[in-house]
Amino acid sequence: MRQRELTIPVGDLELECGETLPAVEQHVTIYGEPNADCSNVVLAPHALTGSSRVAEWWPAIVGENALFDPNHWCVIGINALGGCYGSTGPRTISLSTIGAASTVEKDVLNAFPRITVGDIVRAQQRAIDYLGLEHLALVIGGSLGGMQALQWAVDAPHRINHAVVIGAHDHHSAMGIALNAVQREGLALDRIRGLRLARKIALLTYKSQELLNERHGRRSDRLGQSRFDVEGYLEYQADRFEGRMDAATYATLTHAMDSFDVRNALIRSSNPPRVTFIGISSDWLFRPEDVQAASERFRLRGLPSQYIELTSSHGHDAFLVESKELVVHLRPLLPSLSELAQIRDCSVYPLFMRRRPLQFERDL
Amino acid sequence: MRQRELTIPVGDLELECGETLPAVEQHVTIYGEPNADCSNVVLAPHALTGSSRVAEWWPAIVGENALFDPNHWCVIGINALGGCYGSTGPRTISLSTIGAASTVEKDVLNAFPRITVGDIVRAQQRAIDYLGLEHLALVIGGSLGGMQALQWAVDAPHRINHAVVIGAHDHHSAMGIALNAVQREGLALDRIRGLRLARKIALLTYKSQELLNERHGRRSDRLGQSRFDVEGYLEYQADRFEGRMDAATYATLTHAMDSFDVRNALIRSSNPPRVTFIGISSDWLFRPEDVQAASERFRLRGLPSQYIELTSSHGHDAFLVESKELVVHLRPLLPSLSELAQIRDCSVYPLFMRRRPLQFERDL
Repeated sequence: MRQRELTIPVGDLELECGETLPAVEQHVTIYGEPNADCSNVVLAPHALTGSSRVAEWWPAIVGENALFDPNHWCVIGINALGGCYGSTGPRTISLSTIGAASTVEKDVLNAFPRITVGDIVRAQQRAIDYLGLEHLALVIGGSLGGMQALQWAVDAPHRINHAVVIGAHDHHSAMGIALNAVQREGLALDRIRGLRLARKIALLTYKSQELLNERHGRRSDRLGQSRFDVEGYLEYQADRFEGRMDAATYATLTHAMDSFDVRNALIRSSNPPRVTFIGISSDWLFRPEDVQAASERFRLRGLPSQYIELTSSHGHDAFLVESKELVVHLRPLLPSLSELAQIRDCSVYPLFMRRRPLQFERDL
Repeated sequence: MRQRELTIPVGDLELECGETLPAVEQHVTIYGEPNADCSNVVLAPHALTGSSRVAEWWPAIVGENALFDPNHWCVIGINALGGCYGSTGPRTISLSTIGAASTVEKDVLNAFPRITVGDIVRAQQRAIDYLGLEHLALVIGGSLGGMQALQWAVDAPHRINHAVVIGAHDHHSAMGIALNAVQREGLALDRIRGLRLARKIALLTYKSQELLNERHGRRSDRLGQSRFDVEGYLEYQADRFEGRMDAATYATLTHAMDSFDVRNALIRSSNPPRVTFIGISSDWLFRPEDVQAASERFRLRGLPSQYIELTSSHGHDAFLVESKELVVHLRPLLPSLSELAQIRDCSVYPLFMRRRPLQFERDL
């Protein structure tokens, strides 16, 4: 499957906190080609630890024969502002701002400005402008990705047809804020071991009691160490995580989650987008009843909003690990392939392609 | 209210792990006097961070005009083996075994042997022997205290009439084990700051989403600091906790919780005690459905077991903070005061009193 990687310059970005980030870049991965009216263009922001390579972490959603097959759809994955997979974030500014040798945890964790989901989406809008795309058919995401999808519906209602918000609602809860705070407290104790600890705590918030009971129960460690199996599982996951994330990015993006609250945001549009909220039955971090309540709040504000519940024992993680079940719910919400305009009948395409050589690109 | 404090020598204790703890002591606080047939004697083991002074942390349950009024009932609070309020635990052995100056976190956390809830209850049985009490009317506890109450029913069914198990069931779950493990990992990073972190994580597992939303929501810190109110609340609770617990005790007692599983324990008794399981509707750590399932398992094994649900938005903590509602459920389960034998008509009492001067005692 062909995918293009681009790092797009979007200029200086004034943040909600008042600071300005200079020369911001947005890293995108593009699968497929846009059609004439952009009716096949999907933006897929990632959750806390994802990247722009959506097909890698959401294979039932993006890929050959997946929900969004690049032969018919154009899917844009985008690394969030503040992330560590190619977009401007703590890792890209750390050398100049705080010096590579700084070992003061607090400096490292707080060197990047405090960004919001609104800032993340503003940078994304500029990247979409750069690509010459006026309009998006759909913005879809889970967890922090779902917050971004909803922020698009609020901030750019005229630019999207449909936002799909999975395992997220319209504000981060007190429990969510507190759980992020204890995770960051781990990072402040030790940048490496604390990151492992934060990941373990987070994983437990993503899982359900049922799932852990079934998978691990009270069994002893499968490697024969003197610990319970579930403890070995957490170690394994921390090992996997250590190499692909850093403490400053983790702190930055969890703060962005904490900032999220669009309950009272004004939505200026005579033709607002459809919003689909999907709750997960066993999710205790973003509880299904809270997702449903958010859908109801949007409906009462006159927006075409609907709620769907994904039945799963996987907890919050279901948006990733039960994505095949998610597809069953999502497919009926999408235009059929025959409804999509033909890719070759494409006025946007030349612009889209003209922009391309401005940044590095490689086929993978 | 008169209360007596005793530290009782119970001799060397062979532990389930195979080690022997020498010259074990059990610290008890006694409210009221036992009657002739011990039908008014209640044992109240504590949860993870409690002490033998039950009236201090469970005032609706023990005290003047409380459920167990010392004018009619004799309540024995007991500091668990491995605890830090007067019974043998990491704090009492640390100086001799590892040296007061040891700064290797791992040594400090693992110096005390790995004890189980069975070990804790075996030491308690000896303390009760020492007091000259053949029989207990009731053992009642919440969380780790509930595990101890159930362990009494399993290990000494002939010695108790009734076990009341609140916010606990018949085994510690994979989620419970994993949450304890991440808390101990905090301790291993830093004995003081890690203990604060462990407490914060634990508190979040004791609370419900509803409660935190209602109490703190997304409000800013009430002291004006640049944090959310819920973060300030966690700091305040960590401040309060720091002085009354230590990392080694915390590690020891959470390991004891992890060990708990009496699902397959043999119960040898022709007249087994009644067991009342009380689940809390909003408890996500010890979920009400799991408490109910434990009650059902005990019933299927032929034990007189019943399940009651406490409706509360407080989460696991409800066993402490909603104890007035708990009293409403508990009072009908107890003998009436007129049913209790008169305190002065007392054959046990002299023995009980004779033992008393062997250890220090003070009236408070």
